[in-house]
Amino acid sequence: MTDSIRVGVLGARGRMGLEVCKAVDAADDLELVAMIDQGDPLFRAADKSAQVLVDFTNPDAVMANLQWAIEQGISVVVGTSGFTPQRQEQVRDWLARRPSVGVLIAPNFGIGAILMMQFAAKAARYFESVEIIEQHHPRKLDAPSGTSMHTAKLIADARAAAGSPPMPDATKEELAGARGATVDGVRVHSVRAAGLVAHQEVLFGSAGETLTIRHDSLDRVSFMPGVLLAVRSVLSHPGLTIGLDALLD
Amino acid sequence: MTDSIRVGVLGARGRMGLEVCKAVDAADDLELVAMIDQGDPLFRAADKSAQVLVDFTNPDAVMANLQWAIEQGISVVVGTSGFTPQRQEQVRDWLARRPSVGVLIAPNFGIGAILMMQFAAKAARYFESVEIIEQHHPRKLDAPSGTSMHTAKLIADARAAAGSPPMPDATKEELAGARGATVDGVRVHSVRAAGLVAHQEVLFGSAGETLTIRHDSLDRVSFMPGVLLAVRSVLSHPGLTIGLDALLD
Amino acid sequence: MTDSIRVGVLGARGRMGLEVCKAVDAADDLELVAMIDQGDPLFRAADKSAQVLVDFTNPDAVMANLQWAIEQGISVVVGTSGFTPQRQEQVRDWLARRPSVGVLIAPNFGIGAILMMQFAAKAARYFESVEIIEQHHPRKLDAPSGTSMHTAKLIADARAAAGSPPMPDATKEELAGARGATVDGVRVHSVRAAGLVAHQEVLFGSAGETLTIRHDSLDRVSFMPGVLLAVRSVLSHPGLTIGLDALLD
Amino acid sequence: MTDSIRVGVLGARGRMGLEVCKAVDAADDLELVAMIDQGDPLFRAADKSAQVLVDFTNPDAVMANLQWAIEQGISVVVGTSGFTPQRQEQVRDWLARRPSVGVLIAPNFGIGAILMMQFAAKAARYFESVEIIEQHHPRKLDAPSGTSMHTAKLIADARAAAGSPPMPDATKEELAGARGATVDGVRVHSVRAAGLVAHQEVLFGSAGETLTIRHDSLDRVSFMPGVLLAVRSVLSHPGLTIGLDALLD
Repeated sequence: MTDSIRVGVLGARGRMGLEVCKAVDAADDLELVAMIDQGDPLFRAADKSAQVLVDFTNPDAVMANLQWAIEQGISVVVGTSGFTPQRQEQVRDWLARRPSVGVLIAPNFGIGAILMMQFAAKAARYFESVEIIEQHHPRKLDAPSGTSMHTAKLIADARAAAGSPPMPDATKEELAGARGATVDGVRVHSVRAAGLVAHQEVLFGSAGETLTIRHDSLDRVSFMPGVLLAVRSVLSHPGLTIGLDALLD
Repeated sequence: MTDSIRVGVLGARGRMGLEVCKAVDAADDLELVAMIDQGDPLFRAADKSAQVLVDFTNPDAVMANLQWAIEQGISVVVGTSGFTPQRQEQVRDWLARRPSVGVLIAPNFGIGAILMMQFAAKAARYFESVEIIEQHHPRKLDAPSGTSMHTAKLIADARAAAGSPPMPDATKEELAGARGATVDGVRVHSVRAAGLVAHQEVLFGSAGETLTIRHDSLDRVSFMPGVLLAVRSVLSHPGLTIGLDALLD
Repeated sequence: MTDSIRVGVLGARGRMGLEVCKAVDAADDLELVAMIDQGDPLFRAADKSAQVLVDFTNPDAVMANLQWAIEQGISVVVGTSGFTPQRQEQVRDWLARRPSVGVLIAPNFGIGAILMMQFAAKAARYFESVEIIEQHHPRKLDAPSGTSMHTAKLIADARAAAGSPPMPDATKEELAGARGATVDGVRVHSVRAAGLVAHQEVLFGSAGETLTIRHDSLDRVSFMPGVLLAVRSVLSHPGLTIGLDALLD
Repeated sequence: MTDSIRVGVLGARGRMGLEVCKAVDAADDLELVAMIDQGDPLFRAADKSAQVLVDFTNPDAVMANLQWAIEQGISVVVGTSGFTPQRQEQVRDWLARRPSVGVLIAPNFGIGAILMMQFAAKAARYFESVEIIEQHHPRKLDAPSGTSMHTAKLIADARAAAGSPPMPDATKEELAGARGATVDGVRVHSVRAAGLVAHQEVLFGSAGETLTIRHDSLDRVSFMPGVLLAVRSVLSHPGLTIGLDALLD
């Protein structure tokens, strides 16, 4: 058994941060050495010899956290949102001076969702038709969901690369909206109903067969395996990594 | 064992008519006594003492067939489309003079589809949310499907009768079409893809639970149990009956 | 607007009792007048003029609670388990002396689950085949689930009453267990996996079509609409009522 | 536009052979030059300068066909079953003397089914639990299906390679068969019902999420894209290739 990895959590009292603390604490090969939130000094993480920080703070705080950690030689797994290309460039600059440090920024730590997107991208070229049905709780503000839009883009890119012909669709009379929204040429349907949490189905079809990839996410605890995978991998991935995809062979 | 029912089929060489002939022939309690198509004389059905005729012809032929059959005292199961209220009234007039004769006109002989609609109508009042997702082959011309529009109407009526409040939906930013078409206040999503045949899902939800009723129809042979149920029932249902619903208890 | 119904909760600090308190408190037409748990005197419910008690206690406490409430003329909705035929008989005896009091004992307050069972019982006679697939979290001790066993019995009864022939099944070579458990002649398959909560699918099929009724239960909050329906109905249902079915028309 | 590939079909009057003839004929980049069945001389394929033969004959005929084709320098796509390791070895021997010839033997030409298995193998290491539910028409003789057994093996291999712990399962009381058959440590449930054709669902789960991969096959026409992919690829894949997997990047 190798030594365990020493982990600090930034944003430790937030909803996600708290789950991360619990998950790190429960993992045999990880040691939770610092729980830091607003008002706590960052240097506590260095004092405790943290090797990896997990940042679930907010867009206002995350850049200062990253600059400090990189300078200290501490690798970081980032779940905080708002990473524009400019911000990514800034992080790359900081890392250039600390080539052994790794930073992994992921918009989504759900391994199931990432696999769904990878599989959808791979299947895209082999089927005549594909549509996306995403289903969420009725408190969601946007339709379609961000994940479904991203999935549609991946599918569209794969079909374009393979030279796929347009999908067959003989619809002549349509009641407005029936055929869904068109995202990069892919139809996306957004269902909203009480009792739902977060679900997505990608339906591929060719004459005589369909292939369906469905992801159901019921609880934010489902992001923890992805966070832990990132923590375990970031030390051996110096430089900037965007997205968990690269870690799922 | 009672005597078997003597059945004639009008439109016997059409796609549906042929299936009906096969199904009647295969049923122990029914006897196929006449297969009649364009150019064949109707009186053959009377010569063979048919008790029930099944009409899968076309809107131009069906009224003359009905008038003749009712006069002969022969009951009829009708799958031919195009029955306006005026036509129904006409049939009622003819039947008034022959009170022992039964005519059953059904727009849909799929027992599964009819049960789906009955169940949806019953469940409607008990859930906060409901949406319909119908999925068909890409050669279909209309979206949403007729069945989904009818289902939406039944649900809307049940919710109105129960005084259900509007469904929760916080959508603020919508890409046009994402939330589907609105049919009588119920959202309907129409998926079209190669490999699909004819499918419909009705999704009900309240806090913490969902109830889904799904019908998959793969082959017109699935209409035969409904046709045979109608044939067996029409002799004991004098007068005009619209739809198979009345026969499913 | 009629006066609101005055409700007391027994077992008010248990998991279900607490949810009931919240749900009663949130309902416009109900007033939460007493929260009673182990060690609290029952007469507080009478002092507060409760009209209906909801009992989510335990099999050791529930009979004494019922005897007292019936004597006081207070109606009761019971979610506590363990009601043998002998216990039901005892409750009927007590009610005989108080004909205006209602007691409703329900093994399941999930309206979705009850509708699923009602629909399954109704559909049973119309299809050649039916199988049940129930899916639960891997901490569940028993397989199949109680709900699936009860559903199988309802289906078997309906098929027997309709004189349905045996289901078609040509299986000659079976790896032990592949075809599931046989409950009253109906095959039941029990899936256990992390990430699942409580789900059941009833699949009906005849040549060319299938009808699927699926219930997904994610949270015990889903039982509250059923509890409130019972509270609102029990005052107008004197005597003993078993199960919520009778209240869903 | 390159020249089209000249294709001959062996077993051309069989169910699959006939579909292959139609599919080759309909493809712009392929030319159907010979339709050969029992009693027809093989040399007609050589006379017509076929570059690729597709063999959907039977285990008694296929080896002689292969020996002849390889000697003639004609590549072959084989869908005929019964390829034991010994037979594969024999084919490799014949090919050793004709290094430019390609032979592709596939037990399954369904691209959807193959992708399902590839995706299942990839997802296997990332989830705590996985079970397979396969659903077929009731005339099927074996349970579980061959595809589900093969999928279970791929999953078991991937979990073993990743050092996955045993799946959680607290079942204490089981009615015989409820938890399905165990294939290489993976639970497989076989549903048989009228109205079904050939379906398989692989359900992965970890705390808070599930990922489901489902394949529905309704018609043997669904195998044609896989056959055509093999025909187009075999000329650039000399030697023996087993399975379509290698062609789906």
